Amino acid sequence: MMRTRPLKVALLGCGVVGSEVARIMTTHADDLAARIGAPVELAGVAVRRPDKVREGIDPALITTDATALVKRGDLDVVIEVIGGIEPARTLITTAFAHGASVVSANKALLAKDGSALHAAAVEHGQDLYYEAAVAGAIPLLRPLRESLAGDHVHRVLGIVNGTTNFILDKMDSTGAGYQEALDEATALGYAEADPTADVEGFDAAAKAAILAGIAFHTRVGIDDVHREGMTEVTAADFASARAMGCTIKLLAICERGADGSSVSARVHPAMLPLSHPLAGVREAYNAVFVESEAAGRLMFYGPGAGGAPTASAVLGDLVAVCRNRLAGATGPGESAYAGLTVSGMGDVVTRYHISLDVADKPGVLAQVATVFAEQGVSIDTVRQQGRGDGSGEASLVVVTHRAPDAALSSTVEALRKLDTVRGVASIMRVEGE
Amino acid sequence: MMRTRPLKVALLGCGVVGSEVARIMTTHADDLAARIGAPVELAGVAVRRPDKVREGIDPALITTDATALVKRGDLDVVIEVIGGIEPARTLITTAFAHGASVVSANKALLAKDGSALHAAAVEHGQDLYYEAAVAGAIPLLRPLRESLAGDHVHRVLGIVNGTTNFILDKMDSTGAGYQEALDEATALGYAEADPTADVEGFDAAAKAAILAGIAFHTRVGIDDVHREGMTEVTAADFASARAMGCTIKLLAICERGADGSSVSARVHPAMLPLSHPLAGVREAYNAVFVESEAAGRLMFYGPGAGGAPTASAVLGDLVAVCRNRLAGATGPGESAYAGLTVSGMGDVVTRYHISLDVADKPGVLAQVATVFAEQGVSIDTVRQQGRGDGSGEASLVVVTHRAPDAALSSTVEALRKLDTVRGVASIMRVEGE
Ligand SMILES: NC(=O)c1ccc[n+]([C@@H]2O[C@H](COP(=O)([O-])OP(=O)(O)OC[C@H]3O[C@@H](n4cnc5c(N)ncnc54)[C@H](OP(=O)(O)O)[C@@H]3O)[C@@H](O)[C@H]2O)c1
Ligand SMILES: NC(=O)c1ccc[n+]([C@@H]2O[C@H](COP(=O)([O-])OP(=O)(O)OC[C@H]3O[C@@H](n4cnc5c(N)ncnc54)[C@H](OP(=O)(O)O)[C@@H]3O)[C@@H](O)[C@H]2O)c1
Repeated sequence: MMRTRPLKVALLGCGVVGSEVARIMTTHADDLAARIGAPVELAGVAVRRPDKVREGIDPALITTDATALVKRGDLDVVIEVIGGIEPARTLITTAFAHGASVVSANKALLAKDGSALHAAAVEHGQDLYYEAAVAGAIPLLRPLRESLAGDHVHRVLGIVNGTTNFILDKMDSTGAGYQEALDEATALGYAEADPTADVEGFDAAAKAAILAGIAFHTRVGIDDVHREGMTEVTAADFASARAMGCTIKLLAICERGADGSSVSARVHPAMLPLSHPLAGVREAYNAVFVESEAAGRLMFYGPGAGGAPTASAVLGDLVAVCRNRLAGATGPGESAYAGLTVSGMGDVVTRYHISLDVADKPGVLAQVATVFAEQGVSIDTVRQQGRGDGSGEASLVVVTHRAPDAALSSTVEALRKLDTVRGVASIMRVEGE
Repeated sequence: MMRTRPLKVALLGCGVVGSEVARIMTTHADDLAARIGAPVELAGVAVRRPDKVREGIDPALITTDATALVKRGDLDVVIEVIGGIEPARTLITTAFAHGASVVSANKALLAKDGSALHAAAVEHGQDLYYEAAVAGAIPLLRPLRESLAGDHVHRVLGIVNGTTNFILDKMDSTGAGYQEALDEATALGYAEADPTADVEGFDAAAKAAILAGIAFHTRVGIDDVHREGMTEVTAADFASARAMGCTIKLLAICERGADGSSVSARVHPAMLPLSHPLAGVREAYNAVFVESEAAGRLMFYGPGAGGAPTASAVLGDLVAVCRNRLAGATGPGESAYAGLTVSGMGDVVTRYHISLDVADKPGVLAQVATVFAEQGVSIDTVRQQGRGDGSGEASLVVVTHRAPDAALSSTVEALRKLDTVRGVASIMRVEGE
C-alpha cells in the first residue's frame, strides 16, 4: 500500500539536533517510508550560515530564507529545531497557515506560547508535536497524553536537566563542591559556557510547565512555575542528606493539590530518599517518575539531550504526523478541559530539612520549637550538635512533617529574628516519600 | 465539540482486570468523555458466573452469552479481558466482523495468533490495541511502536514477570533458596497456586514474542522464543553472581544479530551487573530496557500486573481507539515489513559463567582450557578453588568472552566427558554489559 508521491519535509535549523535529523532521514529513508506508508523527502533546510559545510546534505537544499521556505505551500511537515522564541514562533504559525504540520523540539517556546500555537494548529487543521522538548529521547509526552489517557495523574517528579544532574551526581559521589563539579561538567561538554539556563533551573521550569499542562489537562505557563536553581547546594548539604538516607536532585515537580482541584509546578533542589527510583539516576541521564491513581508508580528513563537522542524523538513525531496526514486526520491536540487552578508556591505542601546555627546554651531548642509551633509547622525530628570548638555555637537540624510552604517561610522569618539563632545555614525540601 | 451519542463498549470478562476497568469507566466517566470527545457507555458485561455480586455494575448488563453480545452490531469497542485462547480468539474476530474495534490484555493469545488477529482487524477496518498485554501498566508498546518509529532498536532487555522478579529479589536480599522464596511469594499473593506459567518462563516468553515483533517490525511467534525457567537458580548462583558484581534476573531478551538481518528472542535467568539500571528493579516491579541507535539507552519501569494498573493500560487503549473512531481512522496496525530471519538459540552470542566440580589435581585447568579452545570459546577469567575438605575436589569457575550458544553447548558436552570433571554445577549467561 505504499504511496509513491513523497511527503515533503522542511528542516528549520541544522545544528546539534537538526543535522542528526537530516542524517537519519537519509540513512534510514527506507525504514521511515515503510513505517509511514510513503517516502519522505527533505525539501529544504534553513540555516543562518549558508556557507558552513554540512555533511550529507545537498547544498541546493540549503537556504537562509526560512520564511520563504515555510511559505512554499507544498510542504507536508516543518521540523523546527532552531530554538528560542523568534523567529521560531512566526515560522511555526506561518507553516500552519501554509498547510504544513509542525514537529518542534523547542521547550522555551512551547512553555511560553504552547496554547496559542496549539490554537493556531487547530485553526488550520494541522498537527503540532513536540516529544523532544521534554527529556530529549525519552518517550514521555506521548505516554502521558495517550497511554495514561484513562488514568488520573497525581504527581510527576522529574530529573529533566542533564547538566545539573551531572553536577549533583559528581558532588554526591566525590564530595566535590558546586564550582568544582561545574568545572568538570564544562570540561566534559556537559555544561555550556554560560550555564545559567541549566543551573538556575530555567530549562527545567520550561519542561515542568509543559509536563504539568499535559499531565493535568490544564494550561500551565512558564510564569506559573516556581523556580529555584541549584547553585547554592553545598557539600555540607550532601552530608546532611546522607545522614537522612537521602541524596540531592534538582527536581521538576508537578502535582495536584490535596483537594484535587488545583495543581502546582515547581523546580528546586530537594532531598530524595536513596530508595526512590529517581535517586539512582546518574550522570547526565534524565528520568521522570509518574504517580497515578490506577497505574501506580511509573518511571521513564533515558538520555535527556544530545543530537541523536533528540533526533530520535523528533523522527518519532515525524512518523506520527505523516501517518496522520495520510489518514486525513490529526492527532490529539492540547487538552485543557480540566481547567484546574494553578496554585502558587505558598500553598505547596511538603517536608523540610532546616539547618540552623544557634547559640550553644540551654533553652535554645525550646525557643526554636515554639516558633515552629506558632506557625503551625509540626516537627518530625531535631538533631542538636555542639561544635565542641569553644565557639559557644551549636548546630540544630530540624526535619518537619508536611507543611505549606508559606508556613515554612514565616517560620524561617521568625527564626531569623531570634537572638539565639545566628544564622539559617540551609533550607531544603524533602520529596519522594 | 462534544458529541452526545455515546460510544458503546462491551466488556468481556469481569475478573481482576475487568472489574477495575468497569469501576474506572464509571468513576471517571467525565474525564474519559472529555479526553475522547464523546461519552462512553458500558453496553454489556460477559462473565461465566452470572450470579456473582459485582459491585458498581448494573445487573441488567451482565450476560453469560458473550457471543451474542459481540454480535449486537451496535458496539464501538469490545474489551477482551477473559484471557486464554478460546473463546477469546473467536470473540475478538467476531467483534471485528460485527464492526467493533478491540482492546485486549491477552498476552497468550497475542503471542500465539497476533498476526492473524491483526489481519482480521485490517480486513474489517478495525483497531486492535493491547498495551496491557506486556508489562501491565507500563506504557511500552505505544512508545516502542510510535515514539521510536524513527529509530532503530538494537536490543530489548526486560523484566516482564513480577512473580519471578519477586522471588529472585528475595533470594538475593535474604539468601533464601528458591523454594523458600516461592513460598513467601505465594503467601503474599505474588505467586499463583500453580506458578508454572511464571517460574518456567511461559508468561515472559509470550511477552518476548510480542516485544520482538514490535521492536523489529518482524513476525516473531511464541515458538520462536527460546525459554528456560528459573526454578534451578540456587543460593550458590547468587553467591557467584555477587562475586562478579552481579545479581540474577529472569530476562526476556530480544535482539538483532550482528549482521542486522536476523533477530532472536529468549527468556532465561541471567547474571546482570549491579550497575545496570535493571539490576535495581525490586519486588514485583517490571522494567524494560531498550537500546536503540539514536535514542540510546531507555528504560520503562512500573507495576507489571494487578487489576488497577492493568486497567490503566486498557483504558489508555480505549481512549485511543475511541478517538480513532471519531476521527474515522485506525491507528498503526501490525508492522512486519522488515521480515527479518528469526534465528535459533544456537546463533545467539553472549557471555557465560560456568561452575565446574573438578578433581583437585595438577593439569585439570589445562585440560579444561583445551576443551574451551577446541570449541572456539575464548575464556575471560578462571577462578580455581580447592575445597580444602580432603575430598580431592575443587571448583573451577570459568567466565567466557562472547561466544555463540551452540559453541558453549558443545563445550559443556565435551567437558562432561572429561574424567577430571565431576560435574557441571551451573551454567549462567551474563548479560547487560
Ligand atoms: N541539543 C540538544 O541536546 C537538545 C535537546 C532537546 C531539545 N533541544 C532543542 O532543539 C532546538 C535546537 O537545538 P540545537 O542544540 O540543535 O541548537 P543549535 O545547535 O544551536 O542549532 C540551531 C540551528 O538553527 C539555525 N538557525 C539559527 N537561527 C536561525 C534563523 N534565524 N533562521 C534559520 N536558521 C537559524 C542555526 O544555523 P547555523 O547552523 O547556520 O548556525 C543552527 O543550524 C532548541 O529548541 C533546543 O532547545 C536541543
Ligand atoms: N491480572 C493481572 O494482573 C493481569 C495483568 C496483565 C494482563 N492480564 C491479562 O488480562 C486478562 C484477564 O486477566 P484477569 O486476571 O482479570 O483474569 P480473571 O480474574 O480470571 O478474570 C477472567 C474473567 O473472564 C470471565 N470469563 C471466563 N471465561 C469466560 C467465558 N467463556 N465467557 C465469558 N466470560 C468468561 C470470568 O468470569 P467470572 O467472573 O464469572 O469467573 C472473569 O470475570 C488475561 O488475558 C490476563 O493475561 C492480567
